[in-house]
Amino acid sequence: MTNTLSRFDIDSMEQRYRANLINSLSGFKPAVLLGTTDGQTHNLAIISSVVHIGANPPLLGMIMRPHTVQRDSLGNIKKSGFYTLNHVHTDWVDKAHQTSARYEPNESEFDAVGLTPLLSDDFPAPYVKESGVRMGLKVAQHFTLINNTEMIIGEIQELHVDEKHIAEDGYLDIEASMSACISGLDSYHSTTRLAQFAYAKPNTDTRKK
Amino acid sequence: MTNTLSRFDIDSMEQRYRANLINSLSGFKPAVLLGTTDGQTHNLAIISSVVHIGANPPLLGMIMRPHTVQRDSLGNIKKSGFYTLNHVHTDWVDKAHQTSARYEPNESEFDAVGLTPLLSDDFPAPYVKESGVRMGLKVAQHFTLINNTEMIIGEIQELHVDEKHIAEDGYLDIEASMSACISGLDSYHSTTRLAQFAYAKPNTDTRKK
Repeated sequence: MTNTLSRFDIDSMEQRYRANLINSLSGFKPAVLLGTTDGQTHNLAIISSVVHIGANPPLLGMIMRPHTVQRDSLGNIKKSGFYTLNHVHTDWVDKAHQTSARYEPNESEFDAVGLTPLLSDDFPAPYVKESGVRMGLKVAQHFTLINNTEMIIGEIQELHVDEKHIAEDGYLDIEASMSACISGLDSYHSTTRLAQFAYAKPNTDTRKK
Repeated sequence: MTNTLSRFDIDSMEQRYRANLINSLSGFKPAVLLGTTDGQTHNLAIISSVVHIGANPPLLGMIMRPHTVQRDSLGNIKKSGFYTLNHVHTDWVDKAHQTSARYEPNESEFDAVGLTPLLSDDFPAPYVKESGVRMGLKVAQHFTLINNTEMIIGEIQELHVDEKHIAEDGYLDIEASMSACISGLDSYHSTTRLAQFAYAKPNTDTRKK
């Protein structure tokens, strides 16, 4: 049985209650660590707002909140133009969540939570060594949305991935590589594949791959 | 072991291979059905690009591709300003995927795949009756991104949800309500909760809720 809540019901909710509920409605979200640096301190922040924008050129978007714990990461991105995105694995979701604590600007979340910065000669932002799916991105577009959150779109410059998880058709098995997902603000999940389907056609039964 | 792929490697990939790979990189994505209408034909389209924008006011974003099978849905949204988002359940992911077939504009995906349009007196777009988490949205912002995809941000006007899945703090247990997630373009997954964590604080161990 479903209950119907009106906009008035939602607007009348206690603030924290509403935040938990509305953050659950967008469905399962990717668990990703955002790596940035100011040249001295390497910053790490859990984000769940990564969204696919396009494959050619390879573009990913993310939504950032400028007046929250994400402030330092956002400042680093604005200054340098570069950042990394690193999949969180199911066996260290606790460390990933801990990056959401409000550390001092000169304190590295890498050190605080026990993850290892991986620095490459070719890319000016720190990767997470423990992650099996790592991307280095350069800001391609950046703007402010209606509610004063900011959207950053980045172009993938470099990709670290275990090629044994890439299928013949290019699909990356992120379940086999132990990527985690998030619901709401603080719930972490592993996944189980139900099916992979072939390209759908009208008047043809849905076929598994 | 991870392999490093450069931007040149990515740009050199065969188009379909690259699409599969890059679509996997954003991590797990929500499985959501977009309901729209032109007043005669009720349209339904699977989307995996829904992203949380804000809780107060309650805003969700999504990325749409104007020159694909999403064209009819996008046209309906532009004309009417209203649409619904409905969580896909793990026991009918095949029907949800089948909505991605290229049906004629006057053919309803509801009928074609065997899902039921739910019409409300208070809201001008069709919900999916079989879904346990349904939202009615009104367009709040709409713009074109760098690669000519379109971002639509909608304000939630109405929410249908089973209140037994809402925790005391407002968290909606979308795993208990059988919401599915997607990886890549065509892989569907159920989830298993690993942990739900308390608000993280510096110099304090990560605590489960």
